[in-house]
Amino acid sequence: MYPVITISREFGSGGHSIGMAVAEKLGIPFLDSKIVEEVAKESGFAKEYVKEQDEMATYPELFITSNIFSTNYLDTPQEQIQQLQSEYIIEQAKKGPCVIAGRCADYVLENAGIPALNVFIHASMEYRKKRVLEVYGETDVKIEKRIEKKDKGRKSYYRYYTDRKFGDAKNYALCLNSGILGIDKCIDFIIDVAENFEE
Amino acid sequence: MYPVITISREFGSGGHSIGMAVAEKLGIPFLDSKIVEEVAKESGFAKEYVKEQDEMATYPELFITSNIFSTNYLDTPQEQIQQLQSEYIIEQAKKGPCVIAGRCADYVLENAGIPALNVFIHASMEYRKKRVLEVYGETDVKIEKRIEKKDKGRKSYYRYYTDRKFGDAKNYALCLNSGILGIDKCIDFIIDVAENFEE
Repeated sequence: MYPVITISREFGSGGHSIGMAVAEKLGIPFLDSKIVEEVAKESGFAKEYVKEQDEMATYPELFITSNIFSTNYLDTPQEQIQQLQSEYIIEQAKKGPCVIAGRCADYVLENAGIPALNVFIHASMEYRKKRVLEVYGETDVKIEKRIEKKDKGRKSYYRYYTDRKFGDAKNYALCLNSGILGIDKCIDFIIDVAENFEE
Repeated sequence: MYPVITISREFGSGGHSIGMAVAEKLGIPFLDSKIVEEVAKESGFAKEYVKEQDEMATYPELFITSNIFSTNYLDTPQEQIQQLQSEYIIEQAKKGPCVIAGRCADYVLENAGIPALNVFIHASMEYRKKRVLEVYGETDVKIEKRIEKKDKGRKSYYRYYTDRKFGDAKNYALCLNSGILGIDKCIDFIIDVAENFEE
């Protein structure tokens, strides 16, 4: 059977489409909006808020000092969401093969002792600018600024929850530059490895 | 025609064998000991000394203070070797497709404006220990210590001459974990991408 596949990706690299196509071709679930829905339901946070969390920079913990001898640290909303997401990801991965995009799934599954095929998709700024324009269209914010902001958010989020560097080749079985290889070749390579994966 | 292919690799990952096999299958030269021979001849340094340079940590420049108003910095032997290697790599790459292992060739060619297909091969410590034992055999130094020392040397060398991080996925078209994919799959993927490469 196929392994659980995690796709970490740079904004605009096509990683989301690649993950979706891989899941479809292998006939296994693609967990993305499903995670958002479940976590929103569980936590009471709005879907839109949950959705954008793994592209948001982290911020310091809230804390309440009840007296001079004790400080109670509270989880931030983002930490609560990441916790619920992690639980949901582990639960789904235990059920069987699936493709999971983002949300530090590689790290979450490794820590839970669940074998996974970890993939990272990236591309040059030039390629991503072109793709973001095609897929999402123009907005008031300059395209390069939008990409840079998402990049920073994803890096910061990944760093905070995993203490690893986003895009460090060591953490993945496959890192693919979709701008050089093309989206179709990325899909083919991931399926090829998934079909022969042994833990 | 095929592009110039550069292979950066962790010690014990099989990157050297992969590079050699890719070159052979594509019928293009594999530059490794040839670089060492040429640079040794050109510089007067011993072959063995040239060979191990890209696994050596860098050290501060030598300098001579001739008077209080001027300081003359001299290149270290390693810097001289890297300079000669870079010139040789550029000269060969201009002649036509070839495979080059190590020596910051990805950075050297990019800076010279020569398109290349850049590949990084890595694997877990466990896999590399097994492979190093098989390929190089036991020595007095513990296997893990040998690998860690080579890792440190390659990282430091790459950092010094490129100001980039060794193994950062962004610098490569393909990063492959040879322990998970297997040596043969790595060879197939590189050839597949080389055959369809467009700059």
